Amino acid sequence: MTRLVICGTGNVARQLFDAFQTSADVKVVQVAGRNREALAYFDKYTDTSDHFNNLRKADVYLLAVSDSAIATVAHHLKEGLVAHCSGSTSIDHLPESGRRGVFYPLQTFSQELKVDFENIPICLEAENEVDYKVLEDLALCISGKTYRVSSEQRLGLHLAAVFVNNFTNHLFHVGQTICEQKGLSFEILLPLIEETLRKINHMTPLEAQTGPARRNDIHTEQIQLEQIENKSYQAIYKTISNSIQETYAKEL
Amino acid sequence: MTRLVICGTGNVARQLFDAFQTSADVKVVQVAGRNREALAYFDKYTDTSDHFNNLRKADVYLLAVSDSAIATVAHHLKEGLVAHCSGSTSIDHLPESGRRGVFYPLQTFSQELKVDFENIPICLEAENEVDYKVLEDLALCISGKTYRVSSEQRLGLHLAAVFVNNFTNHLFHVGQTICEQKGLSFEILLPLIEETLRKINHMTPLEAQTGPARRNDIHTEQIQLEQIENKSYQAIYKTISNSIQETYAKEL
Repeated sequence: MTRLVICGTGNVARQLFDAFQTSADVKVVQVAGRNREALAYFDKYTDTSDHFNNLRKADVYLLAVSDSAIATVAHHLKEGLVAHCSGSTSIDHLPESGRRGVFYPLQTFSQELKVDFENIPICLEAENEVDYKVLEDLALCISGKTYRVSSEQRLGLHLAAVFVNNFTNHLFHVGQTICEQKGLSFEILLPLIEETLRKINHMTPLEAQTGPARRNDIHTEQIQLEQIENKSYQAIYKTISNSIQETYAKEL
Repeated sequence: MTRLVICGTGNVARQLFDAFQTSADVKVVQVAGRNREALAYFDKYTDTSDHFNNLRKADVYLLAVSDSAIATVAHHLKEGLVAHCSGSTSIDHLPESGRRGVFYPLQTFSQELKVDFENIPICLEAENEVDYKVLEDLALCISGKTYRVSSEQRLGLHLAAVFVNNFTNHLFHVGQTICEQKGLSFEILLPLIEETLRKINHMTPLEAQTGPARRNDIHTEQIQLEQIENKSYQAIYKTISNSIQETYAKEL
């Protein structure tokens, strides 16, 4: 039975907490955070604290706080294995004096939508095999997929995640805007978006690429560019089309 | 029973043909195309022709040919309802002298992967209700979703499709490239990509947006930009981040 303290009360903290609650091998002995209101969510299930001094004794302290708060909060923790949950923060941001690690679930979290941890890759890092094993056991309580990822690799992964998640979502927003300007529902695009995803389970994105830029069809590109009123969307159209053309020019 | 001639032998023609073959209410009486080799695929199921003169008599002629060939091929067709399958071509590209329409399946087709037409939106256009009904009945033989879409709307839809399909796929390629540069498998990103899609079935992309640009987190953006070696990917990062910031600045 791993005894766990979660520091933080935001989306990640809450979803991790809910996931760990379903495991018989983990006991969340405390949730700590400065936001009293947000702490109320955890009150009925476990002990809570609105400061980080004198936290309960635990095997692992998970820091699910904002990147900028990691060093400050970690500073209060004097014992146990301390792991942060950030994609873009090096393990070196934790105090050298203690046992330290990283427990980074590679997923997009929002308050409105519960995620299923079972399929979420959890990226782990520690400074020795004993601590790695502790984090791995903890991760396997909620997910079937763990990966050993160094701080440098994780930085890259977080960057890749921005491209495939944040940027992709913005392209969906652009698609919706264009549809609505023409009096069409965004719903009409959903099967195409699903197929875009399905394809990359069967071939690489490099192989799956289609469209005017892939075909170097400058005529269609010109017509499409003229249709776009929003300057930012025009810039996106040009930049990505250029990048696609460059990708396949190299291939020739 | 609708008698159908398909002009064209590429991906769209082939997948439409396969889909219609499963319907008892359509008979594909002929497939016509200049590419003898590609015609061989259809030979064992129906009549084929390698020229467009003297095609068989049919109720509907579907032109699943490249955009630039539509006018030329249509020129040969003297009777029946002639509909092209292009997203970016106006109905006016078909000869005014005949009955004309558009039958545009909004999907990405590749030779390697069979699509399931059942969920594919088919966008229809015709010049009168009788012809519209003919196309609608034909579409409903293979798909559960038909939409009435004018030529002008379809241009917008095709543009939106480029953003949500072609451009999104390129972002997946960028993500894969970054992962591989760090010695990580692209597979690690797939659950995140799936969640990106799942989210927009529950909220709008505008609501679903997360990430450094959404938070106006210039510090993280700067660190991430410095990590990107490829100039085209840098440009994509900047352009989309700007567009996200602009989107939410407007909201304030």
